[in-house]
Amino acid sequence: MKSIIIASTSTIHGSGYLEYLLDELKLHFKSANEILFIPYARPGGISHDDYTSVASKAFSKIGKTVKGIHEYKNPKEAILNAQGIFVGGGNTFVLVSQLYKNDVLSSIKDAINDGIPYLGTSAGSNICGLTMNTTNDMPIVYPPSFKTLGLVPFNINPHYLDPIEGSTHMGETRETRIKEFHAYNTQPVIGLREGSWIDFKNDTLTLKGTLDARIFEYNKSPYEIETNSDLGFLK
Amino acid sequence: MKSIIIASTSTIHGSGYLEYLLDELKLHFKSANEILFIPYARPGGISHDDYTSVASKAFSKIGKTVKGIHEYKNPKEAILNAQGIFVGGGNTFVLVSQLYKNDVLSSIKDAINDGIPYLGTSAGSNICGLTMNTTNDMPIVYPPSFKTLGLVPFNINPHYLDPIEGSTHMGETRETRIKEFHAYNTQPVIGLREGSWIDFKNDTLTLKGTLDARIFEYNKSPYEIETNSDLGFLK
Repeated sequence: MKSIIIASTSTIHGSGYLEYLLDELKLHFKSANEILFIPYARPGGISHDDYTSVASKAFSKIGKTVKGIHEYKNPKEAILNAQGIFVGGGNTFVLVSQLYKNDVLSSIKDAINDGIPYLGTSAGSNICGLTMNTTNDMPIVYPPSFKTLGLVPFNINPHYLDPIEGSTHMGETRETRIKEFHAYNTQPVIGLREGSWIDFKNDTLTLKGTLDARIFEYNKSPYEIETNSDLGFLK
Repeated sequence: MKSIIIASTSTIHGSGYLEYLLDELKLHFKSANEILFIPYARPGGISHDDYTSVASKAFSKIGKTVKGIHEYKNPKEAILNAQGIFVGGGNTFVLVSQLYKNDVLSSIKDAINDGIPYLGTSAGSNICGLTMNTTNDMPIVYPPSFKTLGLVPFNINPHYLDPIEGSTHMGETRETRIKEFHAYNTQPVIGLREGSWIDFKNDTLTLKGTLDARIFEYNKSPYEIETNSDLGFLK
């Protein structure tokens, strides 16, 4: 049975790394003593080691050890033996390029299908969707494909931002960008605000956290759904 | 002799389409009665026809007619016969995909090298750089490559945005994104604020408009350069 948390962000304003999620993660990873961390997205260009230390420090607060996938000779084997998997945020283009380069996308999917609990934040959440076409990140490297894990039948837009009232900036709002996405693609997109996450357990998809989320369906006006809603209707 | 305008945006807040640039464009396109418009970037998913009407209306104010490249059977021939070329903004991934699909990148480059005046705004400016890796756009389609025209020896970041003071949003600032770019790439990046443009004439690159620009060089702290500066040092 799949057990997945797809979080908009690792960190909410004024709080430590993963802090707002720790109670949830204690339950989510209850069967795991050690978490396999995939630091490929390298936020700000940070090294794999330094990024793994950040994750390690947070998970130590709930009594879990963390090991980075780069510490293993064989990344596929690391995934095969993982008790729990966490893919951190950063740059989605870098993350997806590395996942393809190491040929581990199907291994991650297999592990999740075998019931290994998965946590994704930001870029690590983007890859849970059908494609990474709705990432907010800068395309600093060219991945071999935009196709991702497809654990859910829609796309994720993490760090969802409402239009800033009175803004004089002429760059596109997030809503305009997702509208452009729907000129070329038909799958739904969920705009997850910071502090929201999707909980996918026992085949049930639920919106969690204190905030509502924004849903973008092809040929429909975008609309809000309340937290704790079942997301099973999104197909 | 090349004659290129690389503008951050088509429109500044509170003003009409291209309005702030019209005096400049009158001079820039003085030898052209008709402008070839490339509407491939389709902002907001607008049709090629509708987008061409927008450009046409603006250019009519300085006595120029506009024809869309999609109105021609053979887009390469359209470029070969153009008196002036304008590539409008929208989504850079869509634009670059279409340019590759119609195999016109080298035709545009040839025309520019033959002295045909070129105007790019936003996505149309991104493609003047070495690659499109520093676009702000959402990757809504997968182009065959991120390589672009390379008319200048650096990359462009249009609609450059300074960090918003006091923001509680945890998504990356523009500066963080460009720093991430430099973890994988070495060419300089110019952050062009809305209202700024690069004027490239007689082999001289000059920053124009009322604002300063922000320069990001590999392994250096970012810094500001004043408007009217010569950009020839960026290599």
